[in-house]
Amino acid sequence: MAELCMNCVPIGFVSSPFKTREDAPKQGRHTDELSIITLEPAYQEAAEGLCIGDDLFVFCWFDRSDRTVLKSRRPGEEQKPPRGIFSNRSPNRPNPIALTLVKLVNIEGSILTVQGLEALDQTPVVDIKPYSEGIDTPRNG
Amino acid sequence: MAELCMNCVPIGFVSSPFKTREDAPKQGRHTDELSIITLEPAYQEAAEGLCIGDDLFVFCWFDRSDRTVLKSRRPGEEQKPPRGIFSNRSPNRPNPIALTLVKLVNIEGSILTVQGLEALDQTPVVDIKPYSEGIDTPRNG
Repeated sequence: MAELCMNCVPIGFVSSPFKTREDAPKQGRHTDELSIITLEPAYQEAAEGLCIGDDLFVFCWFDRSDRTVLKSRRPGEEQKPPRGIFSNRSPNRPNPIALTLVKLVNIEGSILTVQGLEALDQTPVVDIKPYSEGIDTPRNG
Repeated sequence: MAELCMNCVPIGFVSSPFKTREDAPKQGRHTDELSIITLEPAYQEAAEGLCIGDDLFVFCWFDRSDRTVLKSRRPGEEQKPPRGIFSNRSPNRPNPIALTLVKLVNIEGSILTVQGLEALDQTPVVDIKPYSEGIDTPRNG
């Protein structure tokens, strides 16, 4: 197999009121705070077509996560044995790519204001995708 | 800012019937074909807790995508101007991280059989997260 190059580039960075892991909510769903995503100039063109009110999946690179953790407990399961991190949403995982569904509340050039993001201040963003009910909900759900 | 290291490691690889981009459906939603994800031995422990029937987000690294594309047309929008790729689900994007919701139909050790994945054969997998209706659907949707 050819050697794999899977290096992510930051497409932008988060500015948020959450400065430490203790500040951050477990999920963006639990906060009404607004965060700013400032796109890198090279990628601003890729944001054309986004509209205020869009539901967007933001992919952050959780640079302060522990990439060596393979099992952990979910909140509220302190009495149970830890579970593999592919079966929970722990920020600690081999590739610390976080997935958060946010609402786009404003966009001005390269500055996106979003609601519902739990990322720490200065977190790199690696992708943004529009939510689509047709493909992002279970077929039998 | 400290230098960013955002290198992904493969947690596994896909075996699928789709050998070329022409073979693959636009979205996994459009196929009933089964695909196999073979986890790397080092990460098998992280799959503990997964159950048959689970709805899982699979994050693939689309290694055959074009990372230089910033705008493209969506299927069915051939008459419209291209849109920024952050407003569509094109596989071509600065970080070719694909997001597909699949159904786990079998698990035996490090071998996961899933339904609904559109990844090409040999595609690296970089993360698996359980779908959660509570956080993965819009708040007002």
